[in-house]
Formats: sequence, C-alpha cells, structure tokens
Amino acid sequence: MLKKGWLWVLGSGLLLLWLSAWLRPAQGGRVLVMPVEGSHWLSMKVLATGLAQRGHNILLLVPETNILIESSELFRTETFPVKISKEELSTSLKGFQEGVFKRSPALMDIVIQVGHLLNFTGMQVEGCESLLYNKPLMQKLKEENFDLVLTDPFLPCGPIIATALGLPAVYFLRGIPCGLDMLASQCPSPPSYVPRFQSGSTDKMTFVERIQNFVMSGVELVLCRIMYASFDELASRYLDADLTYQEIIGRGAIWLLRYDFTFEYPRPLMPNMVLIGGINCRKSAELSAEVEEFVKGSGEHGIVVFSLGSLVSSMPKEKAAIFFKAFSMIPQRVLWRYTGEIPDDVPENVKLMKWLPQNDLLGHPKAKAFITHGGTHGIYEGICHGVPMVMLPLFGDQGDNVHRVATRGVGVVLSIHDITAETLVDALNTVINDSSYKQRMEKLSAIHNDRPMQPLDLAVYWTEFVMRHKGADHLRPAAHDLNWLQYHSLDVIGFLLFIVLIITLATFKCCALCWRRCCRKSQKRKED
Amino acid sequence: MLKKGWLWVLGSGLLLLWLSAWLRPAQGGRVLVMPVEGSHWLSMKVLATGLAQRGHNILLLVPETNILIESSELFRTETFPVKISKEELSTSLKGFQEGVFKRSPALMDIVIQVGHLLNFTGMQVEGCESLLYNKPLMQKLKEENFDLVLTDPFLPCGPIIATALGLPAVYFLRGIPCGLDMLASQCPSPPSYVPRFQSGSTDKMTFVERIQNFVMSGVELVLCRIMYASFDELASRYLDADLTYQEIIGRGAIWLLRYDFTFEYPRPLMPNMVLIGGINCRKSAELSAEVEEFVKGSGEHGIVVFSLGSLVSSMPKEKAAIFFKAFSMIPQRVLWRYTGEIPDDVPENVKLMKWLPQNDLLGHPKAKAFITHGGTHGIYEGICHGVPMVMLPLFGDQGDNVHRVATRGVGVVLSIHDITAETLVDALNTVINDSSYKQRMEKLSAIHNDRPMQPLDLAVYWTEFVMRHKGADHLRPAAHDLNWLQYHSLDVIGFLLFIVLIITLATFKCCALCWRRCCRKSQKRKED
Repeated sequence: MLKKGWLWVLGSGLLLLWLSAWLRPAQGGRVLVMPVEGSHWLSMKVLATGLAQRGHNILLLVPETNILIESSELFRTETFPVKISKEELSTSLKGFQEGVFKRSPALMDIVIQVGHLLNFTGMQVEGCESLLYNKPLMQKLKEENFDLVLTDPFLPCGPIIATALGLPAVYFLRGIPCGLDMLASQCPSPPSYVPRFQSGSTDKMTFVERIQNFVMSGVELVLCRIMYASFDELASRYLDADLTYQEIIGRGAIWLLRYDFTFEYPRPLMPNMVLIGGINCRKSAELSAEVEEFVKGSGEHGIVVFSLGSLVSSMPKEKAAIFFKAFSMIPQRVLWRYTGEIPDDVPENVKLMKWLPQNDLLGHPKAKAFITHGGTHGIYEGICHGVPMVMLPLFGDQGDNVHRVATRGVGVVLSIHDITAETLVDALNTVINDSSYKQRMEKLSAIHNDRPMQPLDLAVYWTEFVMRHKGADHLRPAAHDLNWLQYHSLDVIGFLLFIVLIITLATFKCCALCWRRCCRKSQKRKED
Repeated sequence: MLKKGWLWVLGSGLLLLWLSAWLRPAQGGRVLVMPVEGSHWLSMKVLATGLAQRGHNILLLVPETNILIESSELFRTETFPVKISKEELSTSLKGFQEGVFKRSPALMDIVIQVGHLLNFTGMQVEGCESLLYNKPLMQKLKEENFDLVLTDPFLPCGPIIATALGLPAVYFLRGIPCGLDMLASQCPSPPSYVPRFQSGSTDKMTFVERIQNFVMSGVELVLCRIMYASFDELASRYLDADLTYQEIIGRGAIWLLRYDFTFEYPRPLMPNMVLIGGINCRKSAELSAEVEEFVKGSGEHGIVVFSLGSLVSSMPKEKAAIFFKAFSMIPQRVLWRYTGEIPDDVPENVKLMKWLPQNDLLGHPKAKAFITHGGTHGIYEGICHGVPMVMLPLFGDQGDNVHRVATRGVGVVLSIHDITAETLVDALNTVINDSSYKQRMEKLSAIHNDRPMQPLDLAVYWTEFVMRHKGADHLRPAAHDLNWLQYHSLDVIGFLLFIVLIITLATFKCCALCWRRCCRKSQKRKED
C-alpha cells in the first residue's frame, strides 16, 4: 500500500513537472513594457498579463502622471517624473471630453484634429525627454538586461529606448496616424484599393474616390513629415545619429496588429505582421447579482449596452437629455456608462453605471444592441459577441472605424452633433428589429471567432519567439535597405529610358547620315 | 460494484464521445482532390491524408496513366482515361531523366526549359480536355456535391473544374512558373527586392542586378501570356466565358504556400496566403534493422544521404563513376537512392537503395550531409532536421532553390555537368568539417521548427475554414476588381497630370494675354 502511495506521489509530481514545463517557458524572459495611455493600454495589458502568467519578468515603465495605467501584482511598475501634474492632466482631459461634443466647421475638422494630435505628441515628446535624460533611471534600465521591449510605436519613447538599449522591439498597435506603420514596415498600400485614413472610402472606390484617395496618400506623406518632426528631432538628438522616427520603428522585430479582416479591408501584409484583432474579447464572465437581475428583467426585449469608451463617460446636460428621452421610448433596458449630471426623471429602463462590465454584458444572451463611440476595442467586443451596433464616432480613428463596420451592414452610424431622440430610436429599432443586421453580424462574428489560434496565444508566442531568437531577422524585408527611388525602381526605369533614348537617337542619326549620303550619291550621279 | 462498473462504462463512453468530437469535425466535408504528378503529389498527399483522418470524404481524381499517384485506403480514387499510354509516359520520363544530365549551351538553357514546359503543359491541357469533355464523369462529379476542390494551380484542370462546379478552391503549391501565383493573387512583388525566377539574384541586389531583375519581371509578363495561352483557350472554351487562366485562379479562396522565410526571402503576402513550408517533414521514424545497422556502423564519421528526387534515380554510367570514386575517398558511409547500372567495384561504405527513407535518415543523429538535387521537399527535410547540404540542381525551380539555400550559408552548390570526384569530396568535406555550416544550419532549423502551429494542422484548419464558410470572401482583396492601369493608379496620375497641364496652360495663356494687353496699352500711351 505504501509503495502504491509513493508511486502515486511520484507520478503526480512528474505530471506536475511536465505540466509546468509545458505551461511555462524553460526560463522566464525579461520584458520592458512601455505602454500608451488610454484604451491603448487596456488591450496591451492583456498581453502583459499573459506574459507575466507565463513566468516572464515584466517591468512596466509609466509616467508618474497617468490616467488608466495601474500597477498589478503580476508585474513590477517603475514610474518616472514628468512635467505635467495630475491636476493639469485632469483639466486637459476634461477639456478634451467637452471638446468632442462641440461641433467644429466641417472644413476645419481635419485641421483641428491635426492640431490636437500635434499638441498631444508635443506633450508626449516632453514626457519622453524627461525619461530619456533621466540618467539614473536609464542606467537602471540598462542594468536590468531586458530581452525585449514591448511597446506601442504610436508614441516615440518605447522604440527610442529599444534602439538605445540595443534590444529587439515587439510592437502592439492598431495603427499610427498617417500610415506611418505601413511606411515603416515597408508594407505596400496601393492607394487604388487601400483607403486612406479619414478618406471616407471603402476598398471599392469610384474613379473620383480613387483620385481623392491618391491625393490623400500624397498628403499623408507630407503630414507624416510635419507630425513626426518632433519625434525625428528627439530621436536624432538622443541617439546622436541621423535617423528618422520612421527608420527607428522600421527596426521592430514583430508587429502585433490589433485587427483582422472582419473589420479591416483585405490588403497586403508583411511577414513580420501578426494579426491579433479581438485580443481584448474574452468569454463573458458572470454578472454581479444586481446587474444580472436588471438584465434578466428586460424579458424578451433584451438590453442595450451603451458606452462612449474609456475616456468619455459624461456629456453636456442637453445632449444627455436626448439619450434619456430616446431610451424612454424603447422597450429594451439600457445599461449606460455615465458619470455626468443625473436628471430627476431617469427612465425606469435605464441603469447608469460608473463602470460597465462591457464584455460580459455584450456576451449576455439578452444583448440586443450596442451603442458605441467606435473605438476598436468596443467594436471587436461587439463583433466577437455578435451584437449589432449604433455608432457615434467622437474623435481620432473612430470615424474611420465605424465606416468600416457600417459597410459590413452590421451597424448604423449617427452623428453625435445631429443626434435627436427620434433618430436614435430609429437606429436602435433598425439594428434590433431588422433581422438582417443580426444575421450579418452573426456571420461576421462566426468568421472572426473561427481562427486557428487565439489572438493572445499568438501574441505571446511571437513575443517569446523574439526572446528565443533575439529578434526576427529572417522576416525583415530587404526593402529596408532601399531608398524611395530604388524601392519603386525609378532609378532603373530612368536608366532604361536613357538607354532607349540613346539608342533611338543613335539610330536616327545613323539613318539621317545614310540618307544624306545616298542623296548626295544620287545627286552626284545625276550631276554626272 | 455493478453501479461503479456502469459509471465507469458511461464515463469512458462520454470521454470517447468528447474525444471523437474534438478530433473530428461535427460533419465530414466532401473534398475533390486534383493533384499534380511527381513530387507535387507527395506533399499534397500529406494534407489529403490529414483531411481523411479528420473524417472528411476525399475523392482523388487522377489520370489513368500516372507515375507516383497511388490510391489509398483513406480516400476514394477516380481515374479518367487520357490519350497517353503508360509506355509512352515511361519513354517520355526516361528521355527526361537522361536529358537532365546532358549539358545544353548556356544561352539556350532558358529556351530549352521553356520549350520543355510548353511541351509538358500542352500534354497536360490534352489530358485535362479528356476529363472536362468526359460528360458522364463530369456529371458524376457534379452529383457528388463537393464542398471544395483542393488542387495545385500549376496545372489548369483543378481550378477550371472548381469554377465549372461553382466550388471554392484551396490551392496547395510551391509556386507557378513566371510568378503567375503572385499576379493572380494580386500580391505585390516589387522587382527592387523580390528576385525573379532564374534571375540568380538574392533580395539584396546591386544596381545592375536590379536592372536585370526589372527586365526579367517584364519578360515574365510576356512569358506568362505565351505559356498560359493554351490554358486560357481551354478555360474560355469550356466555361464559355471570356476569362484568362490568371483570372480563374485569382478566385481561389486560400493559397497554401509550401515555403517559409527560412528558405524564401521576406516579401509581402496577401491575407489569404498561408505558409506551410515543411509540411512534408515529420519526426523521423525508426529505420529498418538492416539500414540501422549500416548507419550505426558509420561510427563517429556518420552518414551522407544522397537522393536526386522522386523522378531521377539513375544516371549515365560515367557520371555515376564520379560519385562512386568520390565516395570511396571519404570516411562517411553513404546511402544513395540509385536504380542505375551497378559497377563491380562499389565502395564498401556505399549502400545503394531503390527507395530511401530520406526523412528518417536525415533525422538520424548520424546524418552529416545531404546530397540533393534541390527540390523543395528535400531542402525542407534538410532544414527541418538541420543537415547541411551539397546541392546538384537538375531542372525547373531547383537552380533557384539551391541558390536561396546557398546564400544562407548552409549548403554548397555544384554543377552536375562539371562535377568531378575531387570537387564533390571537397564540397562534402566543407559542409561536414567546417563547423560554421552546421552551426548556421542548426540556427536556421531552430527558426524553421519554431512556429505556433504545425504546417499540417494549419493547412487542415484553413481547408476546413473554407468548408465551414463556403469560401473566404472576407480575405479577397478588392484589387481583383481593378485592371492593371487602375491598380497602379496610372489613370488617376494621368488625369491629375492632365489637370495640372490644363491649369498651367490656362495660367500661361492668361499671363500672356495680360502681358499683351499691358504692352498694347503702354504702346498706345507711347503712340498717344
């Protein structure tokens, strides 16, 4: 009996050993994580957590003043001082939140957006400088002997630090304004069918739309130069090398792209790009008893989930009144992430919450519609759980995102500026009662969820790959060694045209010479 | 006790049910497999077998006269009569086998190769016609209600049948001559860093090489037109539609490409391309007792594995003598797939075999070098097991393949025409005794084998995906709707240049008019 017991213990021990070897890498790597604030962090956190759970040693590097980035038991956090104070950040954020509900003249919109972006990047460059020139901290980072930097190249600090420390970088992003991600990774984006940011086109364009998209792609090149001038300057100065920011991020080992082709239009990709769209969507957990009761009470009509994202949870009183009025006119119950002023007559079917278990609510069988601002996180949760959407884009890439979703026929777009209770009710009725929306959404959802590997596993795999092989050089295209003229073979075409010209001219000269000689001879003969 | 027994039976039953549900799809699909002869079939067989083992109903459609395609217990085989007899095929094959050892004038080489290919495709078109116009068989195929066609678009019959039956197609291939695969899938291949077939360049080219590659990419376009004229004609005639073969294969749902970037140079890919390089490599099985004894007897020197592929297993007596002589000069033991004339003085360290367990031998710890013709199957088995190579390209893509391997520094290329015992011994000594070859090969092998999913699982997954969703339309780029001019935005550029010209002319005219008026006025004033 004793023998059997020992065998059992030994067997279990061996099994545990085998399991732990399988579940964890042989030796945990050392990863420096440099996230970007806001929703960017919310999805990167999924990967950082996944890596920590696999036994890697994670150091999260964040500015002292931040909004959503919090520390965790799973990884170490190192903060660095920045010039902006918590109060200044709050004021700036509040101004921004109010700004999204103010209508700007249509033509000015793009100028204002670029202005906002320049202001934002300026602030970020300042923050980055505080870090880069913080010698003790940089020395400490150097001594940590990291294996890689996991960062979002939306902001310059991560890629610059990776270059400075000579570490391979894994990027985690949805995209970079003006298509810098595609430029830097040498990924072809033919303007004939790859719509540019804010162009309002799909991948199927008319001649006029193609002209517009072509011009936009040219404008983007100029915009890139302007927008990233401060990044270029900082990088060159700090690294003491004549490098553009585009060249620096072009050195990234792996690009983990937070989309797939249920959302994005099919387009060429590079070998070091890995699609992890939907990484933030997970199997829905149980709701709290109170919320579950409210949801269940909706009966056959079901619920509507309403959130304007991680940064915007309030709105002007008059705007909120429109929503309250609309919700009083529908039979569904509404769960709304709202921290604004609460009126006296909140309809009974509306539950206001400071924080919304959005993923779990969307995954609930009672979820009928999702009112969203069109951030990619919300959109992917909607697609993942198959819930049709009413979309109210506020800023940044959201206008483009909702356009992509709307062209799939799984959502309706409304303008936050022009919205009325009637248009909102109409839109909700359409996506809830016109069964074609649900059908198309279920089909899209089935395609999105049908993938050989879960996005998180894929992201973890390729991050560990970079650790194991100290990069992914075998996936780096030789296009990085060519300049623009060479890449497009314009020097070759020029040379060939020159040769053709020379040959044509020489032939022409020869013919002319022969002709003249012949003429002379016949003239001579005539004269003779 | 009885109760416990029943519970055990019930539990086991449930477990078995769960296991079978997990291992098999809910309902097996119906797959029509149309392979291409020779080594093409050897790797496609791996997927066909994998699909059959997953419970799918596979019908293998093959010409009555064939070389390597054999029936299997796992899938049904349907043959169709073709004009060429077994004897004619054997004679043709023998002629081909002898031809590869004859040297053709360097300049004529490409002409001869294209000639061979045209002859081969002509024969195949004839065979395909026999099938397409075989009404009873075609009716039978229609009634089978297949879910998809799995085929190699190297030959036209599979894609044409898929179109005729209105079925989605999954392609399984290494590539199609003159880059038709990339053209048809709308995959960008910038000639500035994607070397063309037979160009002899790598992805890093000098200016002269880039000129050469650019010209080659133009020549390819013309070659494509010539080589596939018979395919175009057959497809248009049979389908009664104005379609080119390129347009037909452009409709493929998924392209399973039999390479990865340990072998291929990094380049753009399309979303519906799945890389399954190394699908033919498997964990090496035990050798037969006789072979194992021979291998073990090699001692510390190890063995050399020698095969010239599935189609060439003999060679002229004089050529073979060179190899026998070389092998008598090395300490390693040699296992050679050889069916040619056997001389009296075969060295003791040489074992001649009609069939070689190539994968198992390469996976044996004693394997020191691999003499190969440079087919992708052999190359991937070599990379997979990490064995340095001596390569003797014979025909087709082999010249290009060995060039790719050689640039990685894991193999040496010799010419089958110029080979001598000394050069062969030198080459073997280099790859065996210069440890840098083994080191680089081990690194390459580690990268190749480090992948999130096994190639076979990936191929099965995407084939089943196409069955589940009746295609993969969400991965189809809108570029398919554009013509060449539109794709490259040349119409847009032309239009913009025209507008610029008009504006310039108008401005010039206006200025000239103003100038003239001013001049007249001042002249008038002077006159006054």
